[in-house]
Amino acid sequence: MKIIVERDYDAMSKTTEHILLGEMLQEKRVNLAITAGSTPVKMYEYLAEAVRNKSYLNNVHYYNFDEIPVKGAEFGVTMSHLNDLFFSPAKIDPANIHVLDEKNYENQDARIAADGGLDLILLGIGEDGHFCGNLPGTTRFECETSRVESDATPGMREVMIGEVSGDESKIPDFYVTMGPKSVMKSRRIVLFTNGRKKATTIRKALFGPVTNEHPSSILQMHPNLTVVLDEEAASEIQAFLKM
Amino acid sequence: MKIIVERDYDAMSKTTEHILLGEMLQEKRVNLAITAGSTPVKMYEYLAEAVRNKSYLNNVHYYNFDEIPVKGAEFGVTMSHLNDLFFSPAKIDPANIHVLDEKNYENQDARIAADGGLDLILLGIGEDGHFCGNLPGTTRFECETSRVESDATPGMREVMIGEVSGDESKIPDFYVTMGPKSVMKSRRIVLFTNGRKKATTIRKALFGPVTNEHPSSILQMHPNLTVVLDEEAASEIQAFLKM
Amino acid sequence: MKIIVERDYDAMSKTTEHILLGEMLQEKRVNLAITAGSTPVKMYEYLAEAVRNKSYLNNVHYYNFDEIPVKGAEFGVTMSHLNDLFFSPAKIDPANIHVLDEKNYENQDARIAADGGLDLILLGIGEDGHFCGNLPGTTRFECETSRVESDATPGMREVMIGEVSGDESKIPDFYVTMGPKSVMKSRRIVLFTNGRKKATTIRKALFGPVTNEHPSSILQMHPNLTVVLDEEAASEIQAFLKM
Amino acid sequence: MKIIVERDYDAMSKTTEHILLGEMLQEKRVNLAITAGSTPVKMYEYLAEAVRNKSYLNNVHYYNFDEIPVKGAEFGVTMSHLNDLFFSPAKIDPANIHVLDEKNYENQDARIAADGGLDLILLGIGEDGHFCGNLPGTTRFECETSRVESDATPGMREVMIGEVSGDESKIPDFYVTMGPKSVMKSRRIVLFTNGRKKATTIRKALFGPVTNEHPSSILQMHPNLTVVLDEEAASEIQAFLKM
Repeated sequence: MKIIVERDYDAMSKTTEHILLGEMLQEKRVNLAITAGSTPVKMYEYLAEAVRNKSYLNNVHYYNFDEIPVKGAEFGVTMSHLNDLFFSPAKIDPANIHVLDEKNYENQDARIAADGGLDLILLGIGEDGHFCGNLPGTTRFECETSRVESDATPGMREVMIGEVSGDESKIPDFYVTMGPKSVMKSRRIVLFTNGRKKATTIRKALFGPVTNEHPSSILQMHPNLTVVLDEEAASEIQAFLKM
Repeated sequence: MKIIVERDYDAMSKTTEHILLGEMLQEKRVNLAITAGSTPVKMYEYLAEAVRNKSYLNNVHYYNFDEIPVKGAEFGVTMSHLNDLFFSPAKIDPANIHVLDEKNYENQDARIAADGGLDLILLGIGEDGHFCGNLPGTTRFECETSRVESDATPGMREVMIGEVSGDESKIPDFYVTMGPKSVMKSRRIVLFTNGRKKATTIRKALFGPVTNEHPSSILQMHPNLTVVLDEEAASEIQAFLKM
Repeated sequence: MKIIVERDYDAMSKTTEHILLGEMLQEKRVNLAITAGSTPVKMYEYLAEAVRNKSYLNNVHYYNFDEIPVKGAEFGVTMSHLNDLFFSPAKIDPANIHVLDEKNYENQDARIAADGGLDLILLGIGEDGHFCGNLPGTTRFECETSRVESDATPGMREVMIGEVSGDESKIPDFYVTMGPKSVMKSRRIVLFTNGRKKATTIRKALFGPVTNEHPSSILQMHPNLTVVLDEEAASEIQAFLKM
Repeated sequence: MKIIVERDYDAMSKTTEHILLGEMLQEKRVNLAITAGSTPVKMYEYLAEAVRNKSYLNNVHYYNFDEIPVKGAEFGVTMSHLNDLFFSPAKIDPANIHVLDEKNYENQDARIAADGGLDLILLGIGEDGHFCGNLPGTTRFECETSRVESDATPGMREVMIGEVSGDESKIPDFYVTMGPKSVMKSRRIVLFTNGRKKATTIRKALFGPVTNEHPSSILQMHPNLTVVLDEEAASEIQAFLKM
């Protein structure tokens, strides 16, 4: 496990961009699964700028790792965000974007294997320890890409209403997500986050018990995990870093 | 996960030997952690024959991953077995053997990291799902190299008497083992076993819940796991292999 | 450069088999380009035995690297030999054999690149320093897959008559071969040979001037070259091995 | 070979920085050999900013690949430049800088091999096709780290006077350089340059005959070569890029 602590959100974003670019700047096909959400906003600003109109990066293929379908919409919540945050501003060729959605999710693990496997998966982390759509009580470590019902946990319906901006007419009955076992197959995992409110989550994820109650705790078991944090998110693991 | 099913114990042993030799026959330093026990007896016969007096394999370094100290003896149970099974017949240079024992175990993870990390760890599996000295109730997934007391579990004292051939005067108070987190850091894991009595164990390890009650269940989460079985040991996972 | 010296032809063959099996026994797609000729006869005996009916090796894809077309025949000289030596006895699925011939040679480099590149190319060596169909005076280092005319060099017609067992009616006007630049793109090169008559050739190839007059001299410049020799073939490089 | 063409010097510098950072941002020890000269000035400005005070990059080790000793000075020409351009502004720990000089050059290849080999070597290129201190007429492809006398070629004395700013009292009798064979052992080679006056040089290096008269022509034979150019330096290879 390599843990990188940067001063602030901007430096964390820049260093994460550097890690992604380093993977991308190779001659071979590179398969990346990347996260939506609020953590990567700044990182994608940097990355889109570095990647836009660079034909020498057409070796890079992109995958989303979860999706919340929105009734009546072309794209689900995740792909809409990824389009806005990165694919559109970076002008990524649609041929290099491999969409996971509610129709094809049962084939996601086989498709990625046939494509040569993931080189890197970029993950954020939720305060409850979730990564991708793997929340406490939804999936278990041994799950591969899965369908999670909207009544999977007591609070799930509320979460999903939030994801569709409170519009009850759009609320889906389920979402799909690569499971922990799918994620752990990636040759490299990069986990990044920032802010004081993630400090306990990070401590538990990296140095706590490996338990389904804190799904990201499984990530500490990957042989090639890189973690990028700002100082606040790292504030509860200082003792471990000195070891 | 790559699962290899061979006809019988001999074929399983030969293929495992081939995997090890493939790793060894490189130009760079290669770090291997290898298992003692009964499963590898035939494999070590083949391997010792292939390796003996081959100076071009002096790039290979060997590590044991657990040790049961024996009172009054130079070597513990594991190193004694490894010497008999492999190091002596293969005439391995002692400079290439890196002994883990009760005196240096607290430094094992740091030492391996400083040596460049393990390229491959070869594991057997116990009927109770244990690997290395990680038995149900002793260590937990998040443990690195650890000391386990002889009263850690109700049956432990009996196990340890068995390990010292029933001689109560030699029975140790504890043993040391690389923990699951240490093992999962290896760039490759090879798990091999044979026999009908391991069939359920293997099914649980590879396709069952990831739980500390079946320690080897964590191995299915490694991105580069190779499993070599005879047909009997694979008899309960046929349905998964057809998927 | 890793140089392996074995006692005799049999040991050289066995160790080369081990190197190939080591590459093959991985989870990912593995692309191998392999040689015909007399050197590999024993090696293919071992390899065919190890590989036959092993469905877990369907991740391995095979390429020939040169071809001498035979008028009126389905297969050229190289593919006929490879079928006899290895593909038939090993029962390799034709879907995993990617034939280079006089019709598709202009696409060979692009095809291999699209397939992910070669993981390993296994080469023999001729007394004149040739590898694949790269003889002194035919191709140059910077050549990729090329067509070589039967009058390319003074002795070429004689060579080609030999290749078709003296039957002038079958003698082709040209042959095709991966060029030195194509070969050097492989992630690993394995060169193997035996016998006293190759001793000078090997010394020149590994430690002599890099010159088109001894084509295999370029191989010493590859960052991942493994050479497997018997003691006779290594008899002129002992001084270098002690350094 | 991956060829990256950027709009201008600044973009070329930034992308080269990204490639280096990508290598550096790993958990394992990373060995880099890096170039002095005028080409990398801007790149080092970016890199020093990204690297300064980043303790998480203490896994990176630096090597210079040539040296022109200066009589009476602590450092030779290359190390003085590297200190000014990068090591000082980036505050690199001297323990991570492995100096090649006139006293230890005979051990350079063995030392690098013992350190695990180079992960990446960053090269500039001279108008005459030279890289490192490998000029036409000085070294040959098969040379490893070598001493080159000041009378090795007719123009050499003039070159060396230039290197010591015209001060004849400081002019050395020789310089040392990693040879082409040493350079080609690196697991990755990155070649970068800019400007119209390098256009012919680049065409010859990447697509011309492999000849000692244009030393960098050997680089096209490396299986993992990345070339970063501005549009001017790429102006004579457009036809090849469209293939």
